[in-house]
Amino acid sequence: MGNGVKAEIIAVGTELLLGQISNTNAQWISEQLALHGVNVFHHSVIGDNYERLTSLFSLAQDRSDLVIVTGGLGPTDDDMTREAASEILEKPIYEDAETMRNIEAYYEKNSFTMSPNNRKQARIFEGADILVNDVGMAPGMAIQKNDTLWIFLPGVPREMKAIMQHQGFPYIQQTFPNQSPIFSRMLRFIGIGESQLEHDLKDLIAAQQNPTIAPLASNGEVAIRLTAKAESEAKAKELVQVTEQQIYERVGDYVYGYDDDSIDQSVFELLKEKQFTISAAESLTGGQFVERLVTLKGASSVCNGGVVCYAKSVKENLLEVPKLIISHYGTVSEACAVSMAVNVAEKLDSNIGISFTGVAGPDEVEGHTAGTVFIGIYIDGESPFAKRFYFNGDRDMVRTKAVKKGYELLYHHLKQKNH
Amino acid sequence: MGNGVKAEIIAVGTELLLGQISNTNAQWISEQLALHGVNVFHHSVIGDNYERLTSLFSLAQDRSDLVIVTGGLGPTDDDMTREAASEILEKPIYEDAETMRNIEAYYEKNSFTMSPNNRKQARIFEGADILVNDVGMAPGMAIQKNDTLWIFLPGVPREMKAIMQHQGFPYIQQTFPNQSPIFSRMLRFIGIGESQLEHDLKDLIAAQQNPTIAPLASNGEVAIRLTAKAESEAKAKELVQVTEQQIYERVGDYVYGYDDDSIDQSVFELLKEKQFTISAAESLTGGQFVERLVTLKGASSVCNGGVVCYAKSVKENLLEVPKLIISHYGTVSEACAVSMAVNVAEKLDSNIGISFTGVAGPDEVEGHTAGTVFIGIYIDGESPFAKRFYFNGDRDMVRTKAVKKGYELLYHHLKQKNH
Repeated sequence: MGNGVKAEIIAVGTELLLGQISNTNAQWISEQLALHGVNVFHHSVIGDNYERLTSLFSLAQDRSDLVIVTGGLGPTDDDMTREAASEILEKPIYEDAETMRNIEAYYEKNSFTMSPNNRKQARIFEGADILVNDVGMAPGMAIQKNDTLWIFLPGVPREMKAIMQHQGFPYIQQTFPNQSPIFSRMLRFIGIGESQLEHDLKDLIAAQQNPTIAPLASNGEVAIRLTAKAESEAKAKELVQVTEQQIYERVGDYVYGYDDDSIDQSVFELLKEKQFTISAAESLTGGQFVERLVTLKGASSVCNGGVVCYAKSVKENLLEVPKLIISHYGTVSEACAVSMAVNVAEKLDSNIGISFTGVAGPDEVEGHTAGTVFIGIYIDGESPFAKRFYFNGDRDMVRTKAVKKGYELLYHHLKQKNH
Repeated sequence: MGNGVKAEIIAVGTELLLGQISNTNAQWISEQLALHGVNVFHHSVIGDNYERLTSLFSLAQDRSDLVIVTGGLGPTDDDMTREAASEILEKPIYEDAETMRNIEAYYEKNSFTMSPNNRKQARIFEGADILVNDVGMAPGMAIQKNDTLWIFLPGVPREMKAIMQHQGFPYIQQTFPNQSPIFSRMLRFIGIGESQLEHDLKDLIAAQQNPTIAPLASNGEVAIRLTAKAESEAKAKELVQVTEQQIYERVGDYVYGYDDDSIDQSVFELLKEKQFTISAAESLTGGQFVERLVTLKGASSVCNGGVVCYAKSVKENLLEVPKLIISHYGTVSEACAVSMAVNVAEKLDSNIGISFTGVAGPDEVEGHTAGTVFIGIYIDGESPFAKRFYFNGDRDMVRTKAVKKGYELLYHHLKQKNH
């Protein structure tokens, strides 16, 4: 299983300790290191204070094979990080001429005026390898002390990521070859609850070892993360596939996608495959259904657009929902939802119309409590229908859950029927 | 300035070290502690490993007055956290009868079946005060060892927050009275760039002490965070106000709001104040403009709805943009944007119409490069107009920047004109 590199990540920054930002750098680096087979044992966040920095750096030098430090080296920082690291690493600091030229060139290219502070960023540890920054001006540094590799990076996420991707990870792989990579795969489900899923997979979950089986739930959706570790990525992938197959045999009907797939994307693919176009008539959801579809590249081939009929007058005049339906049943009704779905398909010349009408809250509407939502669906040549749902949560949650449910209904309908 | 409590936050969880989630708990607790005048000096993340836990806990006991531990005490955790803390705190663990009854009641109320693992969560340190969990089943604990207060919390953010708000922070305030609170205020700008703002406030920024003045930029918007520390909240607030006034005198024209205000919210307030209704015709933005407005409670009083005219046919047929305009100038044109703005106002019976047409990318449209956007505005009784913009970034960034620019145009227009 490789050498078992022990890694830790140290973030320097008062804004983190004040809670003004979250330490997303540590998350991203950890995720990437896991994929490279490197185990992370500690994250730390610390301020720009000499004593605390030296004490943490000295601890890190003792306990870790790989220490990644983000932040603390910028032009506005107090430069305690550099001084403290210099003491623990026993490496003096010098101003590197080439780095200085790069910084000057960066300022020239961007027509900024360079402040004297920016010279700081050319201050390098003796013996360090410079990790070039293609997207900003402060470079990263890699330096070895005894058996520990130290990597210093700017705190700006975009710059940190670029340096790690182009220089940092290759450097780590070269320094610590033969790590045991992990392979991770997310199975995404819709139409099955968390407890039902855990029940159906109970024995597999109880017996899990490699891969691990982690059920996750959020936003009315459940997922399972499979993570395997092996001597090679291919072997780890194989382990995941075996367990995935076992899961698929039991609850495969509910799997709509993998990893970063979304139900929106899956519906989009089905629409493309069947060469269907869709339009939406949205009241409480305010355009969110169409907005999510339009986010996807190539959306114009399946989506003509939509009508946000927030006001009753828009339902009546632009969508031409019969006044009779609204006066008899109200705007929050099955009949109104059906009419909206059919009419939006007709008016926007689409094969499919979907509609959302209901109460986002907090106040009730037409005697319906907040959370009541009707979703209507019309598909070319089939009987239009609408279903009533109740979603709990605040205004935003009700709207988001309604849109997700709309995608879910479409997904099942398009998947099951042989159009 | 109070006793200067040194706090640290320890999160236990392998999913954090694997980068599967970000340590948002530490961010939230830090932000709240800052408001309570407590300084946080360390964040740590660590896995469920006995040796590493005892070593970190022992370090925390030595260096901090307040240690907050999140996670590691759940039913599926290995329970190393409890054992390790028990050793360092020198407090044995017992199963608390009342906590056990609460857990059983929680299961009964929610009709779940309790697994034997869940009994773990009633395991309490001897001498600890129980911090009741109103929204879940695992309670928090507060316990003193020498001069250090330890607080243990569940890792689920919703439960952690509820316990801290109702029990944790009051407990901390009682244990460490007379801290120096900080007061923080965000000034939000629109229509002025970051460098211009920094230039206009150069001397103030250079001379900053208390409050600190931190310029921030994101999503095409700039903000300034003022943070003061004093012996009382009132005094800290006063210090912020003095600096705020100085800033306001120079660049107050560009301030549209404070703290959590958004430009959407500010436009919404102006529309309400002037009793205007608005509708939007959205092509590349796919409904995002209306969607953001509808998020706000009470939106129905100002927004009738909108048309997402993604396809040319929807522009022509539903919105009735003259075919002549489209054939002469194209859909990505000033003329089309003006017609869309006027027609959507007319058709949805609104005082204001706003339109977005352009190229989100990545491919070009009608010879226009990705990022080209026309925004049209019609306001009752005024000449409609459209402006051309170029936004860089990917598909999502172009769309988001266009919508924000639309709000900005409306804000300035509504603010300046005396309607």
